Amino acid sequence: MITKESIEAAHERIKPFIHKTPVLTSQSLNEMAGCEIFFKCENFQKVGAFKARGALNAVLSLTDEERAKGIATHSSGNHAQAIARAGKIMGIKAYIVMPRTAPIIKKQGVQGYGGEVFECEPTLAARESTLAEVIEKTGAVEIHPFNNYNVMEGQATAAKELLEETGQLDFLIAPVGGGGLLSGTALAAKFFSPSTQVIAGEPALADDAFRSLQRGSIQPASPPTSIADGLLTSLGDKTFPIIKENVKEVITVTDEEIIAAMRLIWERLKIIIEPSCAVPFAALLKDKSQFKNKKVGIILTGGNVDLNKIAKLFQ
Amino acid sequence: MITKESIEAAHERIKPFIHKTPVLTSQSLNEMAGCEIFFKCENFQKVGAFKARGALNAVLSLTDEERAKGIATHSSGNHAQAIARAGKIMGIKAYIVMPRTAPIIKKQGVQGYGGEVFECEPTLAARESTLAEVIEKTGAVEIHPFNNYNVMEGQATAAKELLEETGQLDFLIAPVGGGGLLSGTALAAKFFSPSTQVIAGEPALADDAFRSLQRGSIQPASPPTSIADGLLTSLGDKTFPIIKENVKEVITVTDEEIIAAMRLIWERLKIIIEPSCAVPFAALLKDKSQFKNKKVGIILTGGNVDLNKIAKLFQ
Repeated sequence: MITKESIEAAHERIKPFIHKTPVLTSQSLNEMAGCEIFFKCENFQKVGAFKARGALNAVLSLTDEERAKGIATHSSGNHAQAIARAGKIMGIKAYIVMPRTAPIIKKQGVQGYGGEVFECEPTLAARESTLAEVIEKTGAVEIHPFNNYNVMEGQATAAKELLEETGQLDFLIAPVGGGGLLSGTALAAKFFSPSTQVIAGEPALADDAFRSLQRGSIQPASPPTSIADGLLTSLGDKTFPIIKENVKEVITVTDEEIIAAMRLIWERLKIIIEPSCAVPFAALLKDKSQFKNKKVGIILTGGNVDLNKIAKLFQ
Repeated sequence: MITKESIEAAHERIKPFIHKTPVLTSQSLNEMAGCEIFFKCENFQKVGAFKARGALNAVLSLTDEERAKGIATHSSGNHAQAIARAGKIMGIKAYIVMPRTAPIIKKQGVQGYGGEVFECEPTLAARESTLAEVIEKTGAVEIHPFNNYNVMEGQATAAKELLEETGQLDFLIAPVGGGGLLSGTALAAKFFSPSTQVIAGEPALADDAFRSLQRGSIQPASPPTSIADGLLTSLGDKTFPIIKENVKEVITVTDEEIIAAMRLIWERLKIIIEPSCAVPFAALLKDKSQFKNKKVGIILTGGNVDLNKIAKLFQ
């Protein structure tokens, strides 16, 4: 179970290895949105994303015996680099299963931290079976990207830091994919700022969390068509109950709204964020009346973009 | 004359109205460059550029009588918005002469601060004659973008803040256009960290400062072809002597090198900078041996870009 104390312990555990990322504000965005927004800039985090927090807390929480055989995961994104970096810091092997279609730069990122890459076909089934083989061969411990309480505790520290810096907030908005960050954010609010309401932003083209909360059971992920490529997975059996109990609402946004929100953040905050990262701000702009004159914290999740690809969105 | 005390006074004067901008570092950029780099992020400054500092110090240094009739300048870029904002803060009129070809968004930026825009033909002669007319009609005081000691004192505060945060640096690198920032940076080093050597980065396609220092007299600006559109003016009679005495060297870089350096900063630091702003880092990468294992401060000057235009550079 995740408690106030376990999140505090996670924060102490990972602090030496993470950035305390800055909180940015913008008068022009506040005027546009009609509320006061505090952007927690995890795009400046190690490996360029909040994933560094959860991966580190999970790896640092292993016993010496567990660590000895290494760690393993499958990921095509930021969690892959986060696990590889955690392995490097701890001096243990990290085995990362990646779809062969993943960008070369992401594979090189993993290898740059000394991680060993295993390529597989770009399907969930192939990723899971390849990971199972790697684990059987090596005895490594799997660190799941979100369906893992230690990972959630690590992700919770982003909202904890934000609340420590801003004081009481009326709302916190985080994006939702598998729900690791959203669960952590909701629990951080519950324990450190109980009056803060937590809201999720989700791509309309990957609205499984929205549908899951409506139906009361985990719904499968949509076909991977949204530009918000970090938010395409469905909720896990460990994240869903936490979200069900502690998240007020999921606001869905179109890809056009995501791109417009991303552009505003690039232009006004002068920072690079990835499409998935723009989803909470897009959600806020979609439902301004709810946030009118309120203090709103937004977790900006990451800044790893392929400029060649993303530049096309701005033309 | 600019003194240690006058820069300190400028800093106190403008502090309530500017951001103390963050200093960013990147392990991967340090490894690539072979030295330790401290990036002073003036792209996060008010109006998106260091120009906010000099404009404010100049306007705040006027007498009540001078202020009463308003302020005026000609500018197609960041100085225009900086002067309009300074006028708004002081509650006085700001008259800005802008070439009719300046981007609409820049004119709107000026008007957003309550500045009055006068359009003219896009030549230096037309800009100067239009400004003279405006001043004759209004009695406003001209605030030159760089050839003004109060402006230079204001720009000096960026390097002063950087040195206060990092402690002693071996080098400071700033870009050079008209030389306001470079003069200020050189004097800040002279007064607050005398062992720090100051170097300028300049576009090879606008290398008038390089040529001026070689020949010992101010050389005219090159035709405006470089992508670094904030650095196309030639030095002024007030900036040239300061630069001649206090700047070690001007390193020129091609537009290709500027774009490559800009891309690295976007990708690794996750921040938006404009092409002119990438010139010092491009200069560092061009002459790595000089900076090997040294501590180097770089003034990142601004982040105002037209994403539609700039995105094309990344394809």
